[in-house]
Amino acid sequence: MEQPAGTRDQRDVSPYFSRDFNGLSAWAELGELARAPYDLTASGALSPTRIRSYRTQAAGFDLLYSTQRVDEAVLAALQRLAEESGAVAQFLLMKKGAVLNRIEGYASEDRQVLHTACRDIFGPVSLAPEASAQAKGELEKLADFLAALEAGDIVNAAGEPFTDLVQIGIGGSDLGPRALYLALAAYKIPGRRVHFISNVDPDDAAAILSGLDLAKTLVNVVSKSGSTLETMTNEELVRKAFAEAGLEPNLHFLAVTGKGSPMDNPARYLRSFYMFDSIGGRYSATSMVGAVMLGFGLGYAHLMDILRGANAMDLAAEEPDIRCNPALLLALLGIWNHNFLGCETLAILPYSQALVRFTAHLQQCDMESNGKSVTRQGKPLAWESGPIIWGEPGTNGQHAFYQLIHQGTAIVPAEFIGFRTSQYGRDLLIEQTTSQEKLVANLLAQALALATGQPNENPNRRFAGNRPSAVLLADRLTPYTMGALLALYEAKVVFQGFIWNINSFDQEGVQLGKKLATRLLTHYAGQRRDPGYSGEASDDPGRALLAAAGMLAKGESG
Amino acid sequence: MEQPAGTRDQRDVSPYFSRDFNGLSAWAELGELARAPYDLTASGALSPTRIRSYRTQAAGFDLLYSTQRVDEAVLAALQRLAEESGAVAQFLLMKKGAVLNRIEGYASEDRQVLHTACRDIFGPVSLAPEASAQAKGELEKLADFLAALEAGDIVNAAGEPFTDLVQIGIGGSDLGPRALYLALAAYKIPGRRVHFISNVDPDDAAAILSGLDLAKTLVNVVSKSGSTLETMTNEELVRKAFAEAGLEPNLHFLAVTGKGSPMDNPARYLRSFYMFDSIGGRYSATSMVGAVMLGFGLGYAHLMDILRGANAMDLAAEEPDIRCNPALLLALLGIWNHNFLGCETLAILPYSQALVRFTAHLQQCDMESNGKSVTRQGKPLAWESGPIIWGEPGTNGQHAFYQLIHQGTAIVPAEFIGFRTSQYGRDLLIEQTTSQEKLVANLLAQALALATGQPNENPNRRFAGNRPSAVLLADRLTPYTMGALLALYEAKVVFQGFIWNINSFDQEGVQLGKKLATRLLTHYAGQRRDPGYSGEASDDPGRALLAAAGMLAKGESG
Repeated sequence: MEQPAGTRDQRDVSPYFSRDFNGLSAWAELGELARAPYDLTASGALSPTRIRSYRTQAAGFDLLYSTQRVDEAVLAALQRLAEESGAVAQFLLMKKGAVLNRIEGYASEDRQVLHTACRDIFGPVSLAPEASAQAKGELEKLADFLAALEAGDIVNAAGEPFTDLVQIGIGGSDLGPRALYLALAAYKIPGRRVHFISNVDPDDAAAILSGLDLAKTLVNVVSKSGSTLETMTNEELVRKAFAEAGLEPNLHFLAVTGKGSPMDNPARYLRSFYMFDSIGGRYSATSMVGAVMLGFGLGYAHLMDILRGANAMDLAAEEPDIRCNPALLLALLGIWNHNFLGCETLAILPYSQALVRFTAHLQQCDMESNGKSVTRQGKPLAWESGPIIWGEPGTNGQHAFYQLIHQGTAIVPAEFIGFRTSQYGRDLLIEQTTSQEKLVANLLAQALALATGQPNENPNRRFAGNRPSAVLLADRLTPYTMGALLALYEAKVVFQGFIWNINSFDQEGVQLGKKLATRLLTHYAGQRRDPGYSGEASDDPGRALLAAAGMLAKGESG
Repeated sequence: MEQPAGTRDQRDVSPYFSRDFNGLSAWAELGELARAPYDLTASGALSPTRIRSYRTQAAGFDLLYSTQRVDEAVLAALQRLAEESGAVAQFLLMKKGAVLNRIEGYASEDRQVLHTACRDIFGPVSLAPEASAQAKGELEKLADFLAALEAGDIVNAAGEPFTDLVQIGIGGSDLGPRALYLALAAYKIPGRRVHFISNVDPDDAAAILSGLDLAKTLVNVVSKSGSTLETMTNEELVRKAFAEAGLEPNLHFLAVTGKGSPMDNPARYLRSFYMFDSIGGRYSATSMVGAVMLGFGLGYAHLMDILRGANAMDLAAEEPDIRCNPALLLALLGIWNHNFLGCETLAILPYSQALVRFTAHLQQCDMESNGKSVTRQGKPLAWESGPIIWGEPGTNGQHAFYQLIHQGTAIVPAEFIGFRTSQYGRDLLIEQTTSQEKLVANLLAQALALATGQPNENPNRRFAGNRPSAVLLADRLTPYTMGALLALYEAKVVFQGFIWNINSFDQEGVQLGKKLATRLLTHYAGQRRDPGYSGEASDDPGRALLAAAGMLAKGESG
């Protein structure tokens, strides 16, 4: 266990730690302004000047926000909201190691929040020197391991190099790392492949193992506690497959885990890397959780570029002027749409097939962080916390759910993500434009169509408009811009949590389902040991219920 | 073009065609009942008896709905809602060929809706004999083609068999077929593989082509109009790759298209199969749009099993008693949660990795169908139409966004989908339970936890409960149950559209974005022809706007 930060940082954060969102003067002000939000459908509302000036930049990304329902008055009120809530001040204190993962007056995780320290490793000093030193230490271990693979010093029992790596993990040990790998597959080392097993679904593991030469495969097992049900089950399943193939699992298996966990056992793993309590699963993609797999698949240099991009965005997020801080501005625009204009969801729409799993990562990062019902003082929230995040890559989405976004009865704010040039560069000029131009043209056209709408004599062909969106644009999806994009959304989520006065770093809401599942499994195991066993015989009504549901699940008649 | 159905069917449908949702007496009744919905957190609320009796079955699926906030009074009112709106009557008339894809008094597609006819081919008579005969005709062509591949009568220029098929399509020509193929990959013909290219993103096509031996690859191009931008662009890209590899594209390319479309050209394709105007893209997975690819990948017998399962569910959907009709009941429960309990979204949560893309298919099928703002008489809706559909397979989701579902400020109704046994059967007993049992136990535990909640001294560990869900369970994910599941959701969506009095079969909302994209591409093409070209010189303010956005997208300073 790490020690909580010094009392100084805790004292610095306390003025902001209990400020309720609806007690801020900007809250009332924004409520007033929301009665008549900027009308994007009015003539001249979306002028070329507005498009050019409602734009900010950092770490390779442009954020274009002219298609939001904001004007100068709203932006000024959002600036005050950021200041009153101490969003940037808290962000800086977080980076320095303040214990922000806690609920005052109640048992809670009581931890620092130091994912930013993983990439605060490029300057002469880090804001959280101890955590950054830990991160560097693990990166050095990884660099040595990767070099030994490269040099042929680490090979399989037959003396052959390893070509494949299977990452076993779930939640934060799967979604973020997988999203990054798929995004950057264009940069992978020739001849190397990475695969992922996450679900407890046995078909998932079976389908992946069936396509592999296990003799040349490394397995990277990732679990901070070393006791995650799905991960342990899949590790057993895969170890069994290795044993059946006559291979010694301990020469193939790597561990990424917490110090002292049941998995922290050198006898069972070829190499072990550490993850720390100050980094939550959903913020851990740039720790060893993602780094081991990315280093194997893309190479150490590309891994460092990801960290460089993330660090650049973390620095940009320290900027107090919201018009110069894309992460903060995106957070505030989200709050404007969600809490003041009443939109329940947010669509993330990347116009890049490589970002096919990035929305799934953001679902976790955002919804697990901000899907909360109590303040950091344990009081029930009197305002909405995190939105529902969903989406699919465009232009596919255009041929699927965009109908509802344009003409449905719900208003869905959207965040478009695009790139000016393609990754592979294998493109084709058809009718004088490239595929990449078609992609970007579609992205921009959607943002404008949603905003301006269009009248029509035929009511079924009418577009009401005033559907807000923002556009994130970079030159190309590279390791650096991918790192920046990841950090942009991490910071956005954290800023929103600070402003809503919720703890964005715990996940108590996942416990009850786990507990009930364990009880039902005890019931199943009891039936297997003793076919006459019946959970219903128990006088525990919860168990009787589970038994009834379990019987139906097993196809027994009720 | 097909002819509209006879006047008899049109006359039969007219009593229901203009009944407004908020004019039905059940609407008012449900509004009253929604003031005090069933409390799932009360002691004894979720009894074993309730769990056993709130259950219905069809075509291999159990629907368990005890964890919905309904009681006998609500179910009776929902039954009346179904009757007053003529949901089943309209469904039957749809199957017989009534012209239900229309808006009265305004220009509209004016088409029949006959996707059910594709699988109404097993009995002595079909409800829509002409459409079913067309479907059978295409299936026979397909059977001949597949047999010729099998027999070695159709081979590549070198006399080798085809091992791979790339499906090029987007929207309905991609999502449904892809979801089915991934769901049933366990049943594929050894040595054959199917791939999909959909996005206009050039990286998408490049990544797929880089792993293929084109000489042994068939390409199936799917577009009803033969003019879909993404599909035509990708076809050109892939044809170019074939030509560069010294291969004759016309010996490798198949077409699935409408009669008379630009793609209906035997000189350019090895074989052509037809799709018809009476089947919308998002309902077309069981037409040739999915069948050619599924026949190649899984074999004709498995394809027929998919159709059999779908047909069985289509038949079950004709049942007027809502407690014996899972599709109708699911539609009504959805309306109860959405329109009366105020839930804006619906999470679809399959506990099966094989269903990894099924939610994406449902996003299209549901949101493109029911994301509408006007009635079938062109009047603005005074009630909410289709919900936002989202979700990911469990148990992955449990480690991602379930935090918000359990403890967020928004209530998210959920539909869980599970199977009692696994597809591959490669499972492992750990602590006396199998992985499949762990999967099912988690599914049931989530449904119960969401419903009952749990008190706690620590407010951050409190679960409010009363979060509704339904569970769909089948013995195993097979071609038959997959077909049934597909048809279940198609029927659900259609029933909801009938009850909301909207046209679930058009998609006018996708037009404006397309139009603006075309204008922006004209601007890009102009710049390429003449570097001095500026769209801004035009006095068309819309063009100036697009040009400004386009300049930013190209990285030119504003």
